[in-house]
Amino acid sequence: MKRLFPRVLGVPHGLPEARGTHRHRVRVLYGDTDRAGVVHHAAYLHYVEAGRLEFFRHRGLVYRELEERTGLGLPVIDLQVRYHAPALFDDLLDLETFALKVTRARAEFATVIHRGDEVLVEVQTTIACVDLRTGHARSLPDEVQRVCVP
Amino acid sequence: MKRLFPRVLGVPHGLPEARGTHRHRVRVLYGDTDRAGVVHHAAYLHYVEAGRLEFFRHRGLVYRELEERTGLGLPVIDLQVRYHAPALFDDLLDLETFALKVTRARAEFATVIHRGDEVLVEVQTTIACVDLRTGHARSLPDEVQRVCVP
Amino acid sequence: MKRLFPRVLGVPHGLPEARGTHRHRVRVLYGDTDRAGVVHHAAYLHYVEAGRLEFFRHRGLVYRELEERTGLGLPVIDLQVRYHAPALFDDLLDLETFALKVTRARAEFATVIHRGDEVLVEVQTTIACVDLRTGHARSLPDEVQRVCVP
Amino acid sequence: MKRLFPRVLGVPHGLPEARGTHRHRVRVLYGDTDRAGVVHHAAYLHYVEAGRLEFFRHRGLVYRELEERTGLGLPVIDLQVRYHAPALFDDLLDLETFALKVTRARAEFATVIHRGDEVLVEVQTTIACVDLRTGHARSLPDEVQRVCVP
Repeated sequence: MKRLFPRVLGVPHGLPEARGTHRHRVRVLYGDTDRAGVVHHAAYLHYVEAGRLEFFRHRGLVYRELEERTGLGLPVIDLQVRYHAPALFDDLLDLETFALKVTRARAEFATVIHRGDEVLVEVQTTIACVDLRTGHARSLPDEVQRVCVP
Repeated sequence: MKRLFPRVLGVPHGLPEARGTHRHRVRVLYGDTDRAGVVHHAAYLHYVEAGRLEFFRHRGLVYRELEERTGLGLPVIDLQVRYHAPALFDDLLDLETFALKVTRARAEFATVIHRGDEVLVEVQTTIACVDLRTGHARSLPDEVQRVCVP
Repeated sequence: MKRLFPRVLGVPHGLPEARGTHRHRVRVLYGDTDRAGVVHHAAYLHYVEAGRLEFFRHRGLVYRELEERTGLGLPVIDLQVRYHAPALFDDLLDLETFALKVTRARAEFATVIHRGDEVLVEVQTTIACVDLRTGHARSLPDEVQRVCVP
Repeated sequence: MKRLFPRVLGVPHGLPEARGTHRHRVRVLYGDTDRAGVVHHAAYLHYVEAGRLEFFRHRGLVYRELEERTGLGLPVIDLQVRYHAPALFDDLLDLETFALKVTRARAEFATVIHRGDEVLVEVQTTIACVDLRTGHARSLPDEVQRVCVP
């Protein structure tokens, strides 16, 4: 299957990150696997979310504080996922997250999940902004737009 | 392993429920299994929660409405689970839920999960009441106490 | 956001299904929600998987039996998800699943998740076939190809 | 509510572990929370499992290797959970795991989940041993019994 982000290498932990990306490491839990013996396809999305929030934190935006201070949330509104090879229980996975594009209304991210130098899963995520109390759409706050610049 | 609720039979779907119990049927999802090929031990708790909420609904209490009308929630504060035999992907499981005890502060429930007449898992759940906004403990509302009488 | 499958209406439960689609109903669990008060974006994938397996069952293919009889599995290799509006705790959701395309190597499905006549989430899923023991790619068995014809 | 393991303090990260215990740190994911704004009661069990497997690893037993080498698994057969206070999104939780008792048939563990010096959840877990292919009960292998000695 074709790569979503063909120029991204799965760079093993310990080597430097590409400029603008953030690397986050997770260990696969037993409960993330299914009876096929591999990570269930929905479980990766929790890793991807964690990787995106660590990307934010690394750039100075603590997402929980944003929610609590502004009453705004950043829901996922679009996803594309390509599964190249399965992750297994107890694997250490590295997630490279980087921003693809940002407008006043939306931000797009790429996440490449790899194990060593093998790319397992690629994810493109689009987030928007809503008022958590009413659910109404809002512009992305400036502080969010800033950290989402590619 | 000894039974938690030894007098409860796993009564196959189609036969009448015992007085005071409510039967709820779920089908095991692929994602509820793990690489051992069986339902992961944490996944049953979601079935048990659904069974308890259907028990409430059957007695006239719609839990979502309660939360929205009163701002109160009924968190689980204590659990005991005994796993006798594993459930498998695609199994149809029947959950028999009944009330064990209720005070102003807490209510206790038993849930027996069975597949046909084989008892797979037994769960004893204690719930309390909190103000969802502050997290402070509250008495169980009368309408909750009423539906929790054994 | 543009619809993935614009000609699909969210047809309320009780009305007939479109030809070739299969409708499956799920109730949102408490544990499927997150602190934003809505269904977490990963949770829908479990519903979609259930909907696809019920589509198979409706056409005479019991997926668990297929796995056990042939040692083959049908992993998800590509996903596209568009989130139009959030589902809430206790909602009854209807999933309309239909086949889009099938080749010897892959099958593509559309799933439209709606609540009454409001379309909440659209999902395009591509599955392939692997030997569950070795993980090697296989052709889709004839019996699978047959049920995946649009 | 009374403590299950009253003599265990929630010892903040950075301070030494008690003799025989192993400390494991997890960060709460967004998807682990529910619409009450706190961690869902089932989500803690995944943390507890990770804590127990890290306890094993720390003592030289890599659980994945054990499964793959011997074909044996260590399913949870009994659980007791006491929820004292809720964990929140993005919290850093410390899990102290220690062995309580081991026989040829079973091993019991305590896990105390705390945030700083506040104890949030206590869990007592009993595991047994099964042949993963047949599901039949087996004795705990010597290498497992050894690492489970309190």
